[in-house]
Amino acid sequence: MRNPGPTVSEILASHESGSGSPTQTAARVADAIAARGADGTWITPVPRERLLADAAEIERRPGARTLPLYGVPFGVKDSLDVAGWPTTLACPDFAYTATETAPVVQRLLDAGALFVGKTNLDQFATGLNGTRTPYPIPRSVFGGELICGGSSSGSARAVALGEVPFCVATDTAGSGRVPAALNGILGWKPSRGLISAVGLVPACKSLDCVTLMATTVEDLDRVFEVVAGVDPDDPWSRARGPRRPGTRLRVGLPGVHELEFFGDDGFRAAHLAARDRLGRLGFDCVPTTLEPFLAAGELLYQGPWVAERLVEFETFLTEHPDSILPVIREILTGGFRFTAVDVFRAQQRLQELRATVARLWSEIDVIVVPTIGTTFTVDQVLADPIATNTVLGHYTHFGNLLDLTAISVPMGTAADGRPLAVMVLGPALADDTVLAAAARILDEPRQAGAHAEIRLAQKERQ
Amino acid sequence: MRNPGPTVSEILASHESGSGSPTQTAARVADAIAARGADGTWITPVPRERLLADAAEIERRPGARTLPLYGVPFGVKDSLDVAGWPTTLACPDFAYTATETAPVVQRLLDAGALFVGKTNLDQFATGLNGTRTPYPIPRSVFGGELICGGSSSGSARAVALGEVPFCVATDTAGSGRVPAALNGILGWKPSRGLISAVGLVPACKSLDCVTLMATTVEDLDRVFEVVAGVDPDDPWSRARGPRRPGTRLRVGLPGVHELEFFGDDGFRAAHLAARDRLGRLGFDCVPTTLEPFLAAGELLYQGPWVAERLVEFETFLTEHPDSILPVIREILTGGFRFTAVDVFRAQQRLQELRATVARLWSEIDVIVVPTIGTTFTVDQVLADPIATNTVLGHYTHFGNLLDLTAISVPMGTAADGRPLAVMVLGPALADDTVLAAAARILDEPRQAGAHAEIRLAQKERQ
Repeated sequence: MRNPGPTVSEILASHESGSGSPTQTAARVADAIAARGADGTWITPVPRERLLADAAEIERRPGARTLPLYGVPFGVKDSLDVAGWPTTLACPDFAYTATETAPVVQRLLDAGALFVGKTNLDQFATGLNGTRTPYPIPRSVFGGELICGGSSSGSARAVALGEVPFCVATDTAGSGRVPAALNGILGWKPSRGLISAVGLVPACKSLDCVTLMATTVEDLDRVFEVVAGVDPDDPWSRARGPRRPGTRLRVGLPGVHELEFFGDDGFRAAHLAARDRLGRLGFDCVPTTLEPFLAAGELLYQGPWVAERLVEFETFLTEHPDSILPVIREILTGGFRFTAVDVFRAQQRLQELRATVARLWSEIDVIVVPTIGTTFTVDQVLADPIATNTVLGHYTHFGNLLDLTAISVPMGTAADGRPLAVMVLGPALADDTVLAAAARILDEPRQAGAHAEIRLAQKERQ
Repeated sequence: MRNPGPTVSEILASHESGSGSPTQTAARVADAIAARGADGTWITPVPRERLLADAAEIERRPGARTLPLYGVPFGVKDSLDVAGWPTTLACPDFAYTATETAPVVQRLLDAGALFVGKTNLDQFATGLNGTRTPYPIPRSVFGGELICGGSSSGSARAVALGEVPFCVATDTAGSGRVPAALNGILGWKPSRGLISAVGLVPACKSLDCVTLMATTVEDLDRVFEVVAGVDPDDPWSRARGPRRPGTRLRVGLPGVHELEFFGDDGFRAAHLAARDRLGRLGFDCVPTTLEPFLAAGELLYQGPWVAERLVEFETFLTEHPDSILPVIREILTGGFRFTAVDVFRAQQRLQELRATVARLWSEIDVIVVPTIGTTFTVDQVLADPIATNTVLGHYTHFGNLLDLTAISVPMGTAADGRPLAVMVLGPALADDTVLAAAARILDEPRQAGAHAEIRLAQKERQ
């Protein structure tokens, strides 16, 4: 059962009109979560009574109804700190109670949003499949024992189930996009640094990106307007780019021979059919090449970046090896085999690929590829955890290495009912462009400068 | 005997007016070089007859007198390729005959400049002192057995002697600025990527920067106008920034307690006196801090970047260890001890420092420090080659790590006659700003948009 819940905009409208209230919403959310039991979505949900009390507190704030996210419930991936709550990273022995709240979460709380809890993830945010957790393994909401995708597994599932209309998650190599694709929702990885990564336990700090998951572009716009901002405490922080003028969009489409579906003919046919629709949606489709993107992706999963995870986890790995899932331990340990020379050599190669990709953006505004080339069941992943994970990252690995912005957009299902998604990627700071493309694919009305309009509307309400 | 030769502008004026000619200039240059014999300036000077023939060829070109560098002689650091000539890197066993000409040199040749030869350097461009060469060790033109500085030792000396009015050199950690300071000339390290680094044998590829040495800012402007340009074959290539409007310049001056002269009280007094002059030159002097700059510099010489040199030289080091000077071998071998984790940890720290420094530029346009805190004789360096080299890089190590533009500007001499220099540093793409500051220090007239005016003048001549 997918997405039975209201959107951010619908909840706001209900709370503002008085047809609903934050406490009523909190009760509904608590009921929905309780009804599903331990389905692997949440690691630490806020208990019902506390959730209702928090909602009541929001209601009592002066001018509460003018808050931009007044009483809107949301989930937080359990690698981001929320003061007073445990941060587990899906590793109970690593867990600690956070004393500070990540700025991205604090901005939401200040805007009147309602924190619902911490969501499940692949341990240490290391994985794209959602099975690497000591907690119950979540499944895709599409059923058939399909994996939920990861590492932001619980975040995607919570949104897809309609328990919350949006979640804050992360994406280093695809962690925000792959689970979105497997659960039929939007997963947006803004350009790195637009949302502060302070309060996030790093996976690969130089690549980590805070992401948003929701079901409409309007919701992403609304939430982004609240959470975006330069943070002097985040060394990668930067200001967002210009708004997209309402002109035609040049969509780069790689040659069909460059697309890899790993023998999944059903997914192949479904993706090619979805691609064909793009031209009819008013995009200017332009042939392009995927080669430099994929070459960068290969650098990530064959190269030394795994060693960056050891900057954060080396001490814990050394002192508590048995506290770590075997597959995660194997991956992390692999980082030790790389030398400094390996890193510089790979980074020099990456710089060449970045320059090549940079030139492509003179010909196209965005590139569209499948988010994932095929799907797996939980059993398939558990039987071959490394190889299946690599397959899942085929189209997402390169996103942060190449400093791109990217959004996974649901496009219905394949003939056999599995969820289909395309990914729209653009250069750094072209965030408004990829959102505009996503809105057109979803047939959502969206004007140029949507952010600014929302901000204006919020000001008028205040 | 310093700088007895004519500038680029004077040579151009002479050639254009007919009071001199490229062949006459070539003869003068060949005579000057021959008169000095094997003084360690040149590794491969173009032989006299060939130089005269090349000058004659330039004279025969259609419209020769309108060429922007018509018959202007120049030297090239022997780590840059010039087709048909050996590239030695001051390592005879590494040497090869280049088959392509580096784009920076090709642009000069196309502009009518006269290639005079390849200049001496610290082996593999690894060093800041100028003694690390199997060829004769050059001395500073200021005498007293002072080191020439390096790694672009011969380039600085050739300009300071007036043999050529400018040289093309490189700067990874100070190699273009330290020898300029020790020879009383300008050494300018433009923002990385403004001049193509194709055809340069890399030292640290991610940090290497092609630099220019000359005796006037006007000459640097003229040469830069010819050599600057985006090169799709250089992954670090980028376009130059905007011109500097003719407004006041905010000059950041670190606290005196932050300045390090390594016990050299004469240099200390001379620098502080030179600093005092800046306010009288019309600069707005603003207190600032050197701390994040120096912290980045420490990362360079204590950290893993030395391993990047092994990307280029590991094979040669392994196969021909005895072909390498012992001190260079020791330094390169040190790169093996760093792991991939070391690199990522250092780069994360560097990103923090970059963000800190980036914020400083809202308060100041440039920062002014000594180029070097003290000087050494050749014997002092040979007796303690590593420690003295580290001292020489105290103020230059951080320049490329922090992606700055920097120019070393001569400011006379200390009381004992040793050459004094300040370094003006600004953020990436603020190149016109640091040139404007240098011109004011040298009391050279220079208008905002100097580049554009020179380009216009060149067009009018054509």
